[in-house]
Amino acid sequence: MGGPEVERLIGLLAKLPGLGPRSARRAALKLLQQPEARMLPLATALTEAARAVRPCRLCGNLDSHDPCGICGDPNRDRTLICVVEGVGDLWAIERAGAHRGLYHVLGGTLSPLGGVGPEDLSVTPLLRRLGEGEAREVILALGATVDGAATAHWLADRLAASAVVVSRVAQGVPIGGALEVLDDGTLSTALRARRPA
Amino acid sequence: MGGPEVERLIGLLAKLPGLGPRSARRAALKLLQQPEARMLPLATALTEAARAVRPCRLCGNLDSHDPCGICGDPNRDRTLICVVEGVGDLWAIERAGAHRGLYHVLGGTLSPLGGVGPEDLSVTPLLRRLGEGEAREVILALGATVDGAATAHWLADRLAASAVVVSRVAQGVPIGGALEVLDDGTLSTALRARRPA
Repeated sequence: MGGPEVERLIGLLAKLPGLGPRSARRAALKLLQQPEARMLPLATALTEAARAVRPCRLCGNLDSHDPCGICGDPNRDRTLICVVEGVGDLWAIERAGAHRGLYHVLGGTLSPLGGVGPEDLSVTPLLRRLGEGEAREVILALGATVDGAATAHWLADRLAASAVVVSRVAQGVPIGGALEVLDDGTLSTALRARRPA
Repeated sequence: MGGPEVERLIGLLAKLPGLGPRSARRAALKLLQQPEARMLPLATALTEAARAVRPCRLCGNLDSHDPCGICGDPNRDRTLICVVEGVGDLWAIERAGAHRGLYHVLGGTLSPLGGVGPEDLSVTPLLRRLGEGEAREVILALGATVDGAATAHWLADRLAASAVVVSRVAQGVPIGGALEVLDDGTLSTALRARRPA
């Protein structure tokens, strides 16, 4: 329906995370019904963001400034660098207001089976930052997956000889989570990592 | 995060049906990570669809051709016109392959409380089509809502004096349901089991 332009639009919208073919169709229709108010502004926003946004040369965050708004913020604690797998993790931590230091985006995790080695990640730039900068602590905020844990372990080893303190985000029961619905791994970790009450 | 261009893009994506603020952020991030492969093609698709797509002068469908692909298709049964509230309903029926005739998009339902009268809908063009064309049957495929049922009733009355047979989609449309979200089987059944109004 609607001709090739519409089918093409629906196909591209359907590739967005959160939208399937059905909701992409609804989204396309809503846009088509308001071309001036919705469709062209979205096209413009996409074009401008594609033009303006680049990875930050320091931390790897995506931003229309380079260095990014976080690296360029004089109020951030430059002694504290939070290492994350991806920009989505960085944005999530920022949304939570959970970190007042800087970041370093690794660009993934080590994965011997997937053929991802240290040279595929932003490891050398991290080491350079730590050597040159004011960092005194590195927080490894990697996912609690097999690859995430292996990467954190490898990085901790790699940084052991440096002058910075290396820490990892705590693992345990999520806030608001009921114990009975948690998986065995989380429960075991939470019990093992128990702290004085 | 990401600067004003990114925030603007997230805000516009969040207005799409099916995407909330959180999924819009994920979608924006995915686009930003592939500007050439995803972002600019989507911007182009939006611009081209906005340029190309217009309401069909005959039936009101949105299409890059005018008359639309359905009205211009010589294989469609021109004696049968399916009246729908909106383009989303038309697309849903087409997707189900449930109708081989033409359509007429009413543009809404009568709503005395909402201030929508016959002059706000595509009623006069429908009457003109029925007077001029080859139509022998009009299928009222309006939603099973109060306004949809009232509109179908009003239209059936209005068309009673004309030469066309007026039918309605069968009961089976869930009460309170909008046509565009129905599954194909329900849509097909409702069309097949239409009864005299």
